[in-house]
This record gives sequence, C-alpha cells and structure tokens, in this order.
Amino acid sequence: MEFKAADSLAEQIAGDLAGRIIRGQLKAGERIRELHVAQELNVSRGAVREALLILERQHLVDIQVNRGAQVSALSAEHVKGLFVLLLELYVILANASLTWKSEADLEPYRAIQRELAVAAKFHDVGTFVAQGVELSKAGYVFANNPYLQQILDNLTPVVSRMHYLILDRRREEMQFIHQLFRSLQDALEARDRIRLRELLQRYCEHSCKQVLAAVASQSGDKACV
Amino acid sequence: MEFKAADSLAEQIAGDLAGRIIRGQLKAGERIRELHVAQELNVSRGAVREALLILERQHLVDIQVNRGAQVSALSAEHVKGLFVLLLELYVILANASLTWKSEADLEPYRAIQRELAVAAKFHDVGTFVAQGVELSKAGYVFANNPYLQQILDNLTPVVSRMHYLILDRRREEMQFIHQLFRSLQDALEARDRIRLRELLQRYCEHSCKQVLAAVASQSGDKACV
Repeated sequence: MEFKAADSLAEQIAGDLAGRIIRGQLKAGERIRELHVAQELNVSRGAVREALLILERQHLVDIQVNRGAQVSALSAEHVKGLFVLLLELYVILANASLTWKSEADLEPYRAIQRELAVAAKFHDVGTFVAQGVELSKAGYVFANNPYLQQILDNLTPVVSRMHYLILDRRREEMQFIHQLFRSLQDALEARDRIRLRELLQRYCEHSCKQVLAAVASQSGDKACV
Repeated sequence: MEFKAADSLAEQIAGDLAGRIIRGQLKAGERIRELHVAQELNVSRGAVREALLILERQHLVDIQVNRGAQVSALSAEHVKGLFVLLLELYVILANASLTWKSEADLEPYRAIQRELAVAAKFHDVGTFVAQGVELSKAGYVFANNPYLQQILDNLTPVVSRMHYLILDRRREEMQFIHQLFRSLQDALEARDRIRLRELLQRYCEHSCKQVLAAVASQSGDKACV
C-alpha cells in the first residue's frame, strides 16, 4: 500500500480498511485482527489500534475491550435507524440551504448535478456515490453547524456502504435516485420547503427498503448479523 | 490517577481528560500535549494518542495532523449548532418513546424524575446533569436505533460541558429545567406528541440562549474561540 504524506498513518490505514468494508470485501461480523493488519500493511500495531478507533467513530467497526474489533453489523435496526436519522439531518441541511442568496450559491449544487448525470449515464457506481455525498456536503456552508458536519462526515462511510449494496444490485436504482436528486434541485431552486422534505422522505424510505432487500438477499448468515 | 480494570487504558485517560474539559478546568482552545499527559499520568504516548481519538469522537478536542490536539471551541456556531441538532435527535427519541405500552415502560422515566427532584432540591449540579443524560438514554430502548445511540453517546460530554456552564452560573436555571423535565414527563404519559416537541423546542432554545450568555460572560478570549 502506498501512503500519501498529508494524512496521518492511522488515517491512511483506516481509509484502506474503510474502502474494503464499504465495497463489501470485508463483511459484517468479520473480525479485524490488529496483528494481522499490522503485518499485512507493514505498520506498527499502535497505528492499527488508532485506525480502528477512527473506523469505530465512522460506525464501520465495533470494538470491545479484550475482544477486539469486528466489522459492524447491518441488521434491520441499523438500516432502519440510519435512514430515520438521515432524514432529519438532511432536512436540517435542506432547510438551511433554502436561504441561498444568488446564482453563485446554487452553482456548487448544479456542478454536482452535472457530475451525477454523467455518472448515471455510464453507470459509474463509485462516482455516483461520491457525488451523492458531495450533495449533502454542499449544504454545510449554509447550515454552519460543526456538530452536524462531524456527525454527517462520520456517517458518510456507512451511507456509502449501503449505497454500494443497492447500486451494485439493480441497475435501474441509479436512474431512480438520480431522478430524485434532480427533483431536489428543482425544489431547492423554487425554495419549496415542503416539497424538499417530501422528496427527502421518499428518498430515505425508498433507500431503506432497497438496502433491507439487498441485505436479506445476500447469501450466508455473516452478511447480516 | 487510579484506573479501573473494566475500561481500556485509553478510555480511562480519555475519561480523565473529558472530566476536566466538561468541568471547565481545561478551556476551549487549550493545547493538550501528548508527551505532557503521558508523563503526568505515567502512561505511554500511544495510549494518550488513542485517548485523544476518543475525545475527538466525543467532540471535545480537535486534532490536526502535525499540529496536535486542542480543546474544541465553544463558538456561537457550536452552541447554536448543537441545540438545532439536539432538538431533532430528541424528537426522534421522544416520538419513539410515545409507543410505551405499560406502567413498567414508564417506570425508568419516573425513577429518573425522582433523582432529578432530589438533585434540584440540593442544587447538586453533577447529579442533575448525569440524570438529565439518563433521561435521553431511557429513550434508546424505544428508538432501537444504533446510530442515533452512538451519536447521542458521543454528544453527551459536550451536552454536559454546556450544562455545567449554565448550572454553575445561575441557581434558578436548575429549577427552570427541572420544571421543564417534569412537563415532558406529563406529555409523555399523556402521549401528547405536539406538546412533547413544543417542550423540547423550548428546552433547546432556552438552553442555547443561556449557554451563549455564559460563554460571552467568561473573561478572556480563550474561553470562546
């Protein structure tokens, strides 16, 4: 593994493991062994312990004293819980972004919409998920809420993990979500608060159902503990 | 410092530092030096680094690569942001708890109310803050939402930090909040969803104003960066 200089070593190890969990290469319930990871990546155990704490903050692993770390579960409670929570967090962001003043305020959203359109056209799951995340981040500047921002940043890997599950599974999913994102843009530009909440609710309820179906269809018990 | 066996060393170091930040002994913006803490507590630097990651997750310190850790700011954006967020998170919990079935479901809430009444009578800030936290935790079993739970647990130290600020400052504050908590209990028992939200909104808006006033009144620039 090659490491960039800008992030700390622990962050880079965490990023590597996070990618494997998000893309489904490491499954729910799988043990992550400190010593094994340290040897595999040729880093110290201390750096791996720090990386595991970062992954715990990102809701990707659970750590228990004397029992080590394992990839966090994707149970029905996790899936339903995530979308119940995301709805309210996204509504805070959406309501804040309704205070946009000028075309220049809207341009970041429009740029993301253009990227989403290209990703949807070529069915590029990686780019589509990444740009979907950018869409919520574009609201940070309006909300100006450091805690909301930290919490959403920490949830980003789990949101990505769940979207990989559904976008990999059904091709038409991306078209549906893309259409919904475009409607969100229209509602934002029309400053339609009620429609924004309705659309976000539809998005969260739809995604929740799809993720539950994807988790249920995965073979083996380990996929959903 | 004496350490219990049940928590990891890093958690115990984090708990010690968290207590000092919450009670205001370590101020916003103050640097926390790895080596200094390691020597003071006679523990390894690795354990202190892990503790700092736990405190970062709890929104109590900010860590920047190559610049180390400092006690997180309590700016107006932080204070307003926290209460905007808490309102929606508490409403999710409150709505879930409206599904209570029996007197036995209400008993944990009533037990906490009894503790709060005693703490208010003797103006015991520590117990009052701790029992206030228990009040929101009592909703976990109804919400059954692992992410909401993790996020609220991570916010608990910041919520406590802000309440120490206002309860230490004005004696009548505790009476006001105690009265509000009792009204919440009445609304819960009456299954009055609209009143629950109204009361939570009043609580969040009132506390936000009080914390902003407390932060502003603290002498020196370091208290509010």
